[in-house]
Amino acid sequence: MRNLVTGGMGFLGALLTRKLLANGEKVVIFDVRQDFPVFAADLKGKVEVKRGDISNWVDVMEAVRRYDIDSIFHCASLLTAASEADLSNAFRVNVVGLMNLLEVSRIMGVKSLVAISSGATYGARKPPFDINDATRQEPDNMYGTTKVCCELLGKEYQRRHGVNYRSLRLPMVVGPGRELSYYFGDWSGVIELPAQGKPYKVRINTDIPCGYLYAKDAVKALLAFRDAPESRLRQRVYNVGGFVATLDEVIAEVKRQIPGAQITFERDTSAEMRAYNQGNSYRFDITAATEDFGYRPDYLLKEMVADFIAEVRKQKG
Amino acid sequence: MRNLVTGGMGFLGALLTRKLLANGEKVVIFDVRQDFPVFAADLKGKVEVKRGDISNWVDVMEAVRRYDIDSIFHCASLLTAASEADLSNAFRVNVVGLMNLLEVSRIMGVKSLVAISSGATYGARKPPFDINDATRQEPDNMYGTTKVCCELLGKEYQRRHGVNYRSLRLPMVVGPGRELSYYFGDWSGVIELPAQGKPYKVRINTDIPCGYLYAKDAVKALLAFRDAPESRLRQRVYNVGGFVATLDEVIAEVKRQIPGAQITFERDTSAEMRAYNQGNSYRFDITAATEDFGYRPDYLLKEMVADFIAEVRKQKG
Amino acid sequence: MRNLVTGGMGFLGALLTRKLLANGEKVVIFDVRQDFPVFAADLKGKVEVKRGDISNWVDVMEAVRRYDIDSIFHCASLLTAASEADLSNAFRVNVVGLMNLLEVSRIMGVKSLVAISSGATYGARKPPFDINDATRQEPDNMYGTTKVCCELLGKEYQRRHGVNYRSLRLPMVVGPGRELSYYFGDWSGVIELPAQGKPYKVRINTDIPCGYLYAKDAVKALLAFRDAPESRLRQRVYNVGGFVATLDEVIAEVKRQIPGAQITFERDTSAEMRAYNQGNSYRFDITAATEDFGYRPDYLLKEMVADFIAEVRKQKG
Amino acid sequence: MRNLVTGGMGFLGALLTRKLLANGEKVVIFDVRQDFPVFAADLKGKVEVKRGDISNWVDVMEAVRRYDIDSIFHCASLLTAASEADLSNAFRVNVVGLMNLLEVSRIMGVKSLVAISSGATYGARKPPFDINDATRQEPDNMYGTTKVCCELLGKEYQRRHGVNYRSLRLPMVVGPGRELSYYFGDWSGVIELPAQGKPYKVRINTDIPCGYLYAKDAVKALLAFRDAPESRLRQRVYNVGGFVATLDEVIAEVKRQIPGAQITFERDTSAEMRAYNQGNSYRFDITAATEDFGYRPDYLLKEMVADFIAEVRKQKG
Repeated sequence: MRNLVTGGMGFLGALLTRKLLANGEKVVIFDVRQDFPVFAADLKGKVEVKRGDISNWVDVMEAVRRYDIDSIFHCASLLTAASEADLSNAFRVNVVGLMNLLEVSRIMGVKSLVAISSGATYGARKPPFDINDATRQEPDNMYGTTKVCCELLGKEYQRRHGVNYRSLRLPMVVGPGRELSYYFGDWSGVIELPAQGKPYKVRINTDIPCGYLYAKDAVKALLAFRDAPESRLRQRVYNVGGFVATLDEVIAEVKRQIPGAQITFERDTSAEMRAYNQGNSYRFDITAATEDFGYRPDYLLKEMVADFIAEVRKQKG
Repeated sequence: MRNLVTGGMGFLGALLTRKLLANGEKVVIFDVRQDFPVFAADLKGKVEVKRGDISNWVDVMEAVRRYDIDSIFHCASLLTAASEADLSNAFRVNVVGLMNLLEVSRIMGVKSLVAISSGATYGARKPPFDINDATRQEPDNMYGTTKVCCELLGKEYQRRHGVNYRSLRLPMVVGPGRELSYYFGDWSGVIELPAQGKPYKVRINTDIPCGYLYAKDAVKALLAFRDAPESRLRQRVYNVGGFVATLDEVIAEVKRQIPGAQITFERDTSAEMRAYNQGNSYRFDITAATEDFGYRPDYLLKEMVADFIAEVRKQKG
Repeated sequence: MRNLVTGGMGFLGALLTRKLLANGEKVVIFDVRQDFPVFAADLKGKVEVKRGDISNWVDVMEAVRRYDIDSIFHCASLLTAASEADLSNAFRVNVVGLMNLLEVSRIMGVKSLVAISSGATYGARKPPFDINDATRQEPDNMYGTTKVCCELLGKEYQRRHGVNYRSLRLPMVVGPGRELSYYFGDWSGVIELPAQGKPYKVRINTDIPCGYLYAKDAVKALLAFRDAPESRLRQRVYNVGGFVATLDEVIAEVKRQIPGAQITFERDTSAEMRAYNQGNSYRFDITAATEDFGYRPDYLLKEMVADFIAEVRKQKG
Repeated sequence: MRNLVTGGMGFLGALLTRKLLANGEKVVIFDVRQDFPVFAADLKGKVEVKRGDISNWVDVMEAVRRYDIDSIFHCASLLTAASEADLSNAFRVNVVGLMNLLEVSRIMGVKSLVAISSGATYGARKPPFDINDATRQEPDNMYGTTKVCCELLGKEYQRRHGVNYRSLRLPMVVGPGRELSYYFGDWSGVIELPAQGKPYKVRINTDIPCGYLYAKDAVKALLAFRDAPESRLRQRVYNVGGFVATLDEVIAEVKRQIPGAQITFERDTSAEMRAYNQGNSYRFDITAATEDFGYRPDYLLKEMVADFIAEVRKQKG
C-alpha cells in the first residue's frame, strides 16, 4: 500500500515507518519538522517527505493526491504539555487536523485511516484503574479533550460516509528515542540512559502501578488493526495495552539485566507531578482487540527491558 | 446584565429574549438571519440586532465588544437534519462557533456563557430510557457529535482558564412557534394546529413514551442556571427535562381541552421516522438540576397543553 | 469539457451555463443558493448542481473531484453593496474563495480557470475615462479591492505553478434577469420593464456616458478566452467591453423600438448615487482582447436593445 | 504609547523595539519564535513577549487586549524565499495575518497600525529604475503579491472604517544582524564580516546600482510616520529610501574605512541570482515622505558604512 504517516518524524511515526518499509510498503512521511531528528536520521533518503501543516488542508490534500495515498496512519498531534499551553492551537492541530484528514479521505476515497488516540481520554488525573469498553471517557485536560472529539468525529464520518476511520487508544508508550520530557521522561529514561552506560535520576513516585506499552507492540497493533477485515470489527476504536508495572519493578528488571546501572532518586512531590503519575495508573482490558484483530503484546516487562537495551546498544554501535 | 443571545431569532432564543426583556435586562440578538421570522416579529425594534456568522470570529468579537456583553446565551446551532446533510458545515457552525465564543469570553472576560446542549448526545437512535449523570454519552449522528465536542471544549476552558461555561442538555422542546419540520413536527404540531382551529395529521408512532420539555420551562431553567452561584454547582452540564408522555396521552389531553380538535393519522413506518421517534424516548433524571439550582418543571402534560393553547390564541387575537 | 460554473444560478452564470449546454458541453453549477431563481428556472433538471460555499474548500474540492471537472468558470462573488457592508465576509467569499479554486486547480490539475474581474478595479468613484492595459488599478471600494487581490493571486499561481488562470475585467453588464438593485438598476431596467409593457422610473443622471457590455457578449468573450491557445495570450487579464452610451441615448433607442415606452424621471442627486453613476463612466480599450482571442462585441446600442427586448418577450411568451 | 511590535524578534523589529524603549515607550513583542535570536538577546527581560501566530486571531486579539495596545508596528512577514516556497502559507501569514490586525484594530479601536511594505510590490525581477508614486505596482513573486494585497486591504479599512492604517514601502534594508541569506546576504555581509575582522566572499554582480536603506533610517521613518498628524498625509502608503550605490562603491568605502578588509569574489551568474540582483536596482522618489512627515535619510553611503562598523564593534566589545 501507499501509506502516508503523519508525524512520521516523531518517535512512534518513525518506528512505524521503518516497519512499513521492512514489509515492502511505500511510505510518505508528512511532518511539520524541517528535518529528521537524530533518532530517525536513518530514514533520510529512504522515504518521500511532504513537509506540511496538518491544519492546512492544502498540504494534506496535496500529499494524498501527489502520492496517490491509499492508507493513512495519523500519528501527528500536539501532546499534553503543548495542548495545555495553547488550547486554540491544540484545537487547530488536533481537531481541525483530523477534520482535514477525514474530508480528504472521504473526497479522495482513501481506503484506510488509522489514528492514534489515548488513554488520556479516560482522564489524565485520576482515571479508573480498570478500563474497558464500558468505561466512560471523561477527559480532564486539553489533550484528552481533543482526542475524544477526534474519536467522535471519526466515528461519524464512518457512519455517515463510510470513511474507514479506525483508532487505537494507547497508554504510555515506551521505547528508545522517546523524548524524555520532564513529566513523561522517567518511564523510558530509566531504561534508555543505563543502556547507554549513563546514570539516571528518577523523579516520579515508584510504587504506583502504571500501564506500559512497548513501542514495537504499538506498531504491531497499528498494522494488525489496519489489516483486519471490516467484518471482524465490532467497534471503530479499541484499547490496546502491554502490561502494568510499578517503576520499582522496572528498575529491578533493569538492574538485573544491567548489573551496574546507576539509578538515583530525587522525588518530585509536586501536585503536578503526582497528577501525571496518577494519570498513567490504569490497566486496559484488551479483550476486544485480541478477539477482533488478534492483538496480544509480545513484550511484557522482561522482554521489553531486554529489547529496549538491545536496541539502544545497536544504535550506539 | 447585558446579554447576547445567539440564535435569538430562533424558537427558543426569541422566547428567552422576551423573558430577559421582561426582567429588565438588556439583550442583543446575534443571528445569521436577515430578519425576524413571523413568530418573533414582536421583538423587532425592542432589541439590538447584530447580524453575523457564529463561525466568523470577527462577528462574535464585534458583538461582545460593541455592546459590552457580560452574559451570553448560546442558542445558535445547526440542528439534526442540517448537520447530517453537511458534516463539514456542522463542524464549522457548531464546534468552531463555540470555540469562537469560548475564546472571546476568555479574552474579553465575559462573565457567563450558557450554552444549549441536547439529549442527542446520548444517542439519537436508541438512547437508554433512563438517563442520569452516570449514563455514557454515545452520540450517533452529527448533531449529537458536535454537541459532545462542545461540552468537552467548554469544560476544558472552564477548567483551564476559568471561563464560566455552563450548559444544559434539553430533550425535545415543545412550544408555539417551533418549526414543524417533518421528523420533529408532530410533538408541537398536534397542539399548535388544533389551537389555531386547524386539522393536524400525525405521522409518528403514538404509543412510544417521549421526553417533553415545554419551552417556558427551558427558559426558566436557562435563567436559573445562569444565576446559580458557582459554589452550588457540582458539574458544568446538567440534564433538564419536563415530563414523559406518549403522543396518545398528549392527543387525549388536547381533545379534552379542545373538544372539536381534528387530529387524523397517517403513520410513516419508515426506518428513518422510527429512528427519530425512538431518539426522543428517554427520561432525564433531573435531581442534580433541582438540588443545584432549584429547577423543577412548572408545566407537566396538562399545564403545558393549556398554556400552549392559550399562547397560540393570544398571538392570533 | 466538464465545466464547473460557480455562481451558476446568478445572472451571468446562468446565461453562460445555457450557452455551454447549447454547445454540447457538460456543466455542473456550484452555488450557495438553495434553488434556481425565476430567471434561471429553465436550467432546473438540465444540469448537475453542487450546493456549496466557495469559501469552504471541502465544497470546492468535492465538486471538482466528484464531477472530474477540467474547466472552471468562476462567476460567484459578493458584489459592491454586500462587500462594502461586511469587509471580512467579502474577503472570505471573494479572496479566500479564489484561493480555494487556485489550490484545487493546482492540486487536481484542472485545465482551465476563467474568473470574472471588474472595471471597479480601476476605481468605483472616479475612474479615468479611457482605460487601457497601462492604466493603473486603484480600487476605492471593497469589491474592487478584492478583485485586484484575486487578479494578483491568480497571476502568481500561473507564474509559479502553471495554473491556467485567466480573467476578464467586465464593465457594467446589462441583460434580462439582471437584479435591478437600487444603484445599478437603471441600466438594465430602462429596457427590461418597457419590454414587459411596464413603466420605469429613472433615478440616475442620464447624460453621463457609461461603458456597457451586453450579457451575450460577455458570455461570448468568456468562451473565446477560455479556448484561446496559450501561445496567443500576452497577458492573463484582459479588459472586455461593448460600447459607450449615455442613458439618454439608450432611452431614445428604447423609445424608437418600443414607441409607447413609459419612462419617467425622478433623479436621485445624492452623493452616493452620483458616485455609482461616475463609477461606470469609462471606456475600455479592447485591442488586446481583439488581437489575442478575437473578441469584438456583436451588440452595440441598437442591437443590444433589440435583442434584450426580444429575449424579454420570448420569456414572457 | 503601548506598542505591539509584530516580528519583534526579527532584524528590523528588534531595532525598532530598542528605539521605542529608548524613547520611554512601552513595547510588547509579538513573535512566533520561541526565543530571542543572538542579535536581539539584549531585549530579553526588557520587554513583554506574547508568543503567537499572526494568522491566529486568538493570539492577535489576546495581545492587544491583555496589554491594552494603542499602537501596532507590523514587521512580521514571510519573506521572499519562504513565500515562493509555499504560496498558501504566504497567503495565510502575510494576508490573513494583516486581516487579523485590521479587524482587531477596528474592533478594539487601536489608534495606529503601521505596516511594512516593500519595493518588491513594483516587481522583483525588473522593476523600473526610477520609482515614484505614479509608478504602477506589478508584483511578480508571491512576496510582492501579498504586500500589494495588504496595502489595498489596509487602505480599504482606512477608507471604510477609519482604521489608521499606514504603510511604508522599504527597499533593501541593510544593517547589523540582518540574516545573511544566500540571495540577499552580500549587501549587509560585505560590511558586517570585515567589521568583525573576518573575510567575505561576494557572489552578486557588483556594478549594478541598488537602492539601500540603512536600518536606523528605516526605524526613524517608521516613528516619524506613525507620529505624523493625519492632516499632513496625502496618502496611506509612502516610498522611503536611503541612497543608491553599486556594490563596488560600497566595497571601496568599506576598504577605505577598514584598510585590511578581505573581500573576495566568486560571482554566481545563475539566472536566479541575476534576478535577485536586478530586483533591487531601483531608486525611490521620497518627495512625498519628506514633505508629509519630514523623512530624509541620515545615512548615505559613507555614514552608513561608518555606523555599521561602529555598531558591529560595539556588539563585539
